[in-house]
Amino acid sequence: MNLTYRLATEADLPEIVSMLADDKLGATRETFQEPLPMAYLEAFRSITNDKQQELTVVEADGVILATFQLTFIQYLTYRGSIRAQIEAVRVKSTHRGQGVGTELFQYAIQRAREKGAHILQLTTDKKRPEAKRFYISLGFVDSHEGMKLAIS
Amino acid sequence: MNLTYRLATEADLPEIVSMLADDKLGATRETFQEPLPMAYLEAFRSITNDKQQELTVVEADGVILATFQLTFIQYLTYRGSIRAQIEAVRVKSTHRGQGVGTELFQYAIQRAREKGAHILQLTTDKKRPEAKRFYISLGFVDSHEGMKLAIS
Repeated sequence: MNLTYRLATEADLPEIVSMLADDKLGATRETFQEPLPMAYLEAFRSITNDKQQELTVVEADGVILATFQLTFIQYLTYRGSIRAQIEAVRVKSTHRGQGVGTELFQYAIQRAREKGAHILQLTTDKKRPEAKRFYISLGFVDSHEGMKLAIS
Repeated sequence: MNLTYRLATEADLPEIVSMLADDKLGATRETFQEPLPMAYLEAFRSITNDKQQELTVVEADGVILATFQLTFIQYLTYRGSIRAQIEAVRVKSTHRGQGVGTELFQYAIQRAREKGAHILQLTTDKKRPEAKRFYISLGFVDSHEGMKLAIS
């Protein structure tokens, strides 16, 4: 497949949300309906107005197959380093198991390097062991615990 | 102790870096010397110019005892939610075991709520089991793996 990558536009939003919802965990978290709940549009604008965020769509022949979000975070640690964080990675259910995820990560790694990041990081739910195996296969190390506290 | 919280200024930077370096893992990562390497100042300015970041110092009687960094990240997931991420948490070695960390987290949780975050998250190195126990005691759940990929 010849994949292309571009920043998402508002017109892509329904397709992106439908991918986020089309997943065993995502189905309980998202509300995919037309018109989309306004909260998604507001969140989208907030993301695209933030220079440290990139919401990307992956296409083949003009059709969206996948999405991911990169956030670049400046820290003082490691002598003033930047980390790239990747979240909300989804490949359309009809196109899984075809190497799209691997190519997507190669692109994300390259993009993170361009932005000067020394680490690419993510957290993955322990209820998704297959996802962890995939990240290990890409070279990620499970050196950290990902701790979450619900505060609302 | 009567702790107060404020955003860090450039004048606090040597004190903050000395705390980051005064730690078994931090010692190998940081360079604390006067004058500080310029990379820290550049990183500091990048953090303070970013509306989604807050680098905070904790004081008692005008003396800095601790520091932490909050990042607010807008996502589409969970119907357009904001997550707060806390990193670079350090309590001065002379003041550990006195409840400063617990109070610091109570403040950070309140601040994250004010910013509309529904989750406060962090990753903690598996080589710091005592840190994980502390986060569990605060109510954090170790539901995720924190995966890191060195890219430079």
